[in-house]
Amino acid sequence: MREVCVIGVGMIPFGRYSETWVEELGRKACEVAILDSGVRREEIQVAYCSHSFQGRVMGQRILKDLGLTGIPVINVENACAGGGTSFHQTWMAIAGGCYNVGIAIGVEKMTKGLIPSNIEDLDGLMGRTYPGRFAMMAQRHMYEYGTTKEQLALVSVKNHRNGSLNPYAHYQEPLSLEGVLNSRMVAEPLTLYQCCPVTDGAAAAVLCSKDIAKKYHDQPIEIAASIVTSGMYQSISKGFSSETELSKRAAEKAYESAGVDPEDIDIAELHDCFSIAELLHYEELGFCRFGESGKLIEEGTTCLDGRIPVNPSGGLLAKGHPMGATGIAQVVEIVWQLRGQAGKRQVENPKVGLTHCVGGATPGIGQGACSIHILKK
Amino acid sequence: MREVCVIGVGMIPFGRYSETWVEELGRKACEVAILDSGVRREEIQVAYCSHSFQGRVMGQRILKDLGLTGIPVINVENACAGGGTSFHQTWMAIAGGCYNVGIAIGVEKMTKGLIPSNIEDLDGLMGRTYPGRFAMMAQRHMYEYGTTKEQLALVSVKNHRNGSLNPYAHYQEPLSLEGVLNSRMVAEPLTLYQCCPVTDGAAAAVLCSKDIAKKYHDQPIEIAASIVTSGMYQSISKGFSSETELSKRAAEKAYESAGVDPEDIDIAELHDCFSIAELLHYEELGFCRFGESGKLIEEGTTCLDGRIPVNPSGGLLAKGHPMGATGIAQVVEIVWQLRGQAGKRQVENPKVGLTHCVGGATPGIGQGACSIHILKK
Repeated sequence: MREVCVIGVGMIPFGRYSETWVEELGRKACEVAILDSGVRREEIQVAYCSHSFQGRVMGQRILKDLGLTGIPVINVENACAGGGTSFHQTWMAIAGGCYNVGIAIGVEKMTKGLIPSNIEDLDGLMGRTYPGRFAMMAQRHMYEYGTTKEQLALVSVKNHRNGSLNPYAHYQEPLSLEGVLNSRMVAEPLTLYQCCPVTDGAAAAVLCSKDIAKKYHDQPIEIAASIVTSGMYQSISKGFSSETELSKRAAEKAYESAGVDPEDIDIAELHDCFSIAELLHYEELGFCRFGESGKLIEEGTTCLDGRIPVNPSGGLLAKGHPMGATGIAQVVEIVWQLRGQAGKRQVENPKVGLTHCVGGATPGIGQGACSIHILKK
Repeated sequence: MREVCVIGVGMIPFGRYSETWVEELGRKACEVAILDSGVRREEIQVAYCSHSFQGRVMGQRILKDLGLTGIPVINVENACAGGGTSFHQTWMAIAGGCYNVGIAIGVEKMTKGLIPSNIEDLDGLMGRTYPGRFAMMAQRHMYEYGTTKEQLALVSVKNHRNGSLNPYAHYQEPLSLEGVLNSRMVAEPLTLYQCCPVTDGAAAAVLCSKDIAKKYHDQPIEIAASIVTSGMYQSISKGFSSETELSKRAAEKAYESAGVDPEDIDIAELHDCFSIAELLHYEELGFCRFGESGKLIEEGTTCLDGRIPVNPSGGLLAKGHPMGATGIAQVVEIVWQLRGQAGKRQVENPKVGLTHCVGGATPGIGQGACSIHILKK
């Protein structure tokens, strides 16, 4: 298989766009990414578009507004990992030799109102909603490892601080530890500011085979690993360990595929849908040992000036989480960081970055899908 | 890129399953396809699942019920061409060298009630629904080429005759020409029996690289071409010519890719969502010249014993059209026909078969997606 690079990225400032058509959100992200890439529109040979709630043939509707028609457009869905999946499929279409240039699009208008999964969603019907599930994981982590409420809240403090430096983040105000801890309780111990907000957004990335990348952009970013996989069956009674299995296995595959170790990762965008999620992912991705994530955040290791800055963009907690767009927006941030274009939140000279999404929990499965990408300059 | 074969196919009898969970429909189709293929479940490395209205992470929910977890599962959507797209992506994942064995799944429970596309669907809001659109195309074809109401109705007569020989078809009763013409008028000239019914269904196909196919099945079917593409922008005022462009262009690519001509196709499953659609597709796919499709059906050329039997399964009109499942069910029928396993509707020794789906019309685009596959024994 061929090596593939990201040559262009773009996104709209995340936020609430209740008066704007979702097609327009997507179109703007694509326009920026295409302009950034240096490709002419007619050179784009294939498109993958991820979303979860926007109706039929979304990618075609976005691209039509760009005058970009007559190419294969494939719409993909993988819940919160949809954006990572769309990026993965674009990578595969080029790596496998089918196409030379493609665009990965992610879009979601969460303010539109979500369509419930389906009537067979026993978890939802029984009140095992996402805040409740993640609160149970947090309780378990506190019980098992002595993780504190303050350590959990520090994730939100860090990510909102990062978000305050990111003009693309939904929330750009820093939060104090007290502010996070004293915000409304959603599901003990997770307070409001430890839960990601309802955000609309769109992001896009233009990919091409490595051999032609320099023709378009003088700083192509290599895709050293692109992994999508799904959870193993586990008893529904198992709490947070189900999380662990999927992201851990995906990360091991990604490190092997890229030929790197967790220690080689200079910067990462992780799936911090709740504060506890970021801590769990530190452990699953090998950034620290199991049980030591509370210490990692407390010591500032994952802050912008730490050893491995995590969620420099503000993450899902501050930047927002428009489901289908999130995985691509993570790539946008890492590409900007690797190029040195991240403005006030720029990390010092990162060389290897990682993006990670996970989502789509279903009864009896830990999580439906996980995507991990390792990008190198 | 590598050559890829279909080694196993399966589907459930199409019909109405309002009391059955959609996951169960999908699971049954997968079980049959996997058994037919000769692969062990744990040898399946990747899955693509198509549907349009069934909620999040559908493929994961189906495969969990099979105990098949921990592999990459990607959900795809491309409206009526979703099944063909899921098959295409599975082909690409193997052809490109990412995986050796994969399963393409298509499922739809249409009786569940459809979710409207979106509030921005101007066509729908203005009454330009599918029956209305296709009726306009039929009127235009009659005006331009002198096609008759009887010729249109003959498509339904043929397909319901084929369906009466197919235990997997939703409707298994033959219809007379008078029966079709005298059924309730939906949109002049299309009567009720010239419109595809509301049908639930699921279908699956197991694919692998050609070099290992014989290990699993003694009659592997080669995928000589796999094409997915989308429509070109056209003025909304252009009637049926928008149809023509997409399927015609996709067919030309498919013939070129497979190195065959339309004359080499021995059997085909086409997207006959309405009687007029089948006639238009004869012309777009090169089975006859433009304007001559009425004559083609009248002369019996596309009947089971004709020169090029079309929709031997009964097609969308008699077998039914569960959106995400249709494209894979077409492959199932062609594989059965090429293997000589099609029972009472078996065509005499076909060697090259074609499947064709098209759908997802959006304002200003002819159609959102079209998939064409050419299969060879």
